[in-house]
Amino acid sequence: MKKLQQLYEGKAKKVFATDDPEAYIVEYKDDATAFNGLKKGTINEKGIINNRVSNHLMKMLESHGIPTHLIKELSDRETLVKKVTIVPLEVIVRNIAAGSLSKRLGLPEGKKLAKTVLEYSYKDDALGDPMVNDYHVYAMELATPEELATIAGYAFKINELLTNYLKDLNIELIDFKLEFGKTSDGTIILADEISPDTCRFWDSVTGEKLDKDRFRRDLGNVEGAYQEIMKRLLGE
Amino acid sequence: MKKLQQLYEGKAKKVFATDDPEAYIVEYKDDATAFNGLKKGTINEKGIINNRVSNHLMKMLESHGIPTHLIKELSDRETLVKKVTIVPLEVIVRNIAAGSLSKRLGLPEGKKLAKTVLEYSYKDDALGDPMVNDYHVYAMELATPEELATIAGYAFKINELLTNYLKDLNIELIDFKLEFGKTSDGTIILADEISPDTCRFWDSVTGEKLDKDRFRRDLGNVEGAYQEIMKRLLGE
Repeated sequence: MKKLQQLYEGKAKKVFATDDPEAYIVEYKDDATAFNGLKKGTINEKGIINNRVSNHLMKMLESHGIPTHLIKELSDRETLVKKVTIVPLEVIVRNIAAGSLSKRLGLPEGKKLAKTVLEYSYKDDALGDPMVNDYHVYAMELATPEELATIAGYAFKINELLTNYLKDLNIELIDFKLEFGKTSDGTIILADEISPDTCRFWDSVTGEKLDKDRFRRDLGNVEGAYQEIMKRLLGE
Repeated sequence: MKKLQQLYEGKAKKVFATDDPEAYIVEYKDDATAFNGLKKGTINEKGIINNRVSNHLMKMLESHGIPTHLIKELSDRETLVKKVTIVPLEVIVRNIAAGSLSKRLGLPEGKKLAKTVLEYSYKDDALGDPMVNDYHVYAMELATPEELATIAGYAFKINELLTNYLKDLNIELIDFKLEFGKTSDGTIILADEISPDTCRFWDSVTGEKLDKDRFRRDLGNVEGAYQEIMKRLLGE
């Protein structure tokens, strides 16, 4: 597998073409951003941790029937993934009120929600990734009703699988963000990453935050939290 | 029917108790507000026009099977309505992009939407009436899935009835906001008002705005627009 030209550089990852027209290489960076890019920084070895944690969780999800973009981990920071066109939606699942939900709806952070919440944001930096509902998605033709039903079904199933998996590691899954892509034959699969950058993980015993909120909110010991997640998930 | 003590004063209406425990009197004011109360003013005779226009449209909807709170118009500004507990949601239906939708999603004002959009906002002035989706409604226990399905069904049916009715009067229905209430036996009925305060009405020939956007955006001839709507709907 040959790594060819860089196609894209995002906030936390670079994407490269390969000599396989159906595969990309993703390379994870240590760069960290928050608040739609307003806050910038570096989290030492974040790229390594997120690459390995995300691949570990995607393998677990695959083994339970969730199709993902993962083909093969190539190195500490590089992973071979299936080429997809990203559906321009952030798919957010929330079990406990936190972050923007708490602020927007006046719900105290940490409040258990009576029902799991699924939210979509339209991926558009200039607009600040505005929240959209199913009707907006259809009106803007961002996804078809069938595609959105598939995405919602996977999102709830992933929530169940991740919540149970993490519970045994004394990690409470507060909320998380997913992105889905379409392969060349139109199949919807899980893409992007699942990591402390994209999830809120709280220690189930102490309540300690083990995720990017430590960076967003200047809570200190950011690297330690990321390392702790890798240690609990991968045993190292 | 005896008008008793005032129960509530909103931005555009007052609500009074009556000697019938199942009925209220609504009194329409000329006060106008916009941008969550930041802009304030008066639109001469707006209270009369909105009372009469709203009752006229609710009668039309009732005749097509939509249950409403309307009992009887009592005077130019007063209407006897069924007592309800308001479901704390603004129910917004959009046929054409305009206003906050255009701004939030970057859609040019006037763009026909590929599909009709239904949106909910959580009625909370302090939070700025944030947009919510079905899952937020269930998580916050603002309405049950059955109630929300009833509300969504009525909203789409009302859109169809209003759009067709107004088309014959050379009025294009761009978008509108509804509120629903629950009677003492739990029945969901249409409440609040349907007026140039709560709808965007554009002249289908000239494109002229005949609604509260003339006030919001300082377009002039605000009273004239309200009077024009009353004239087209009620022939006077």
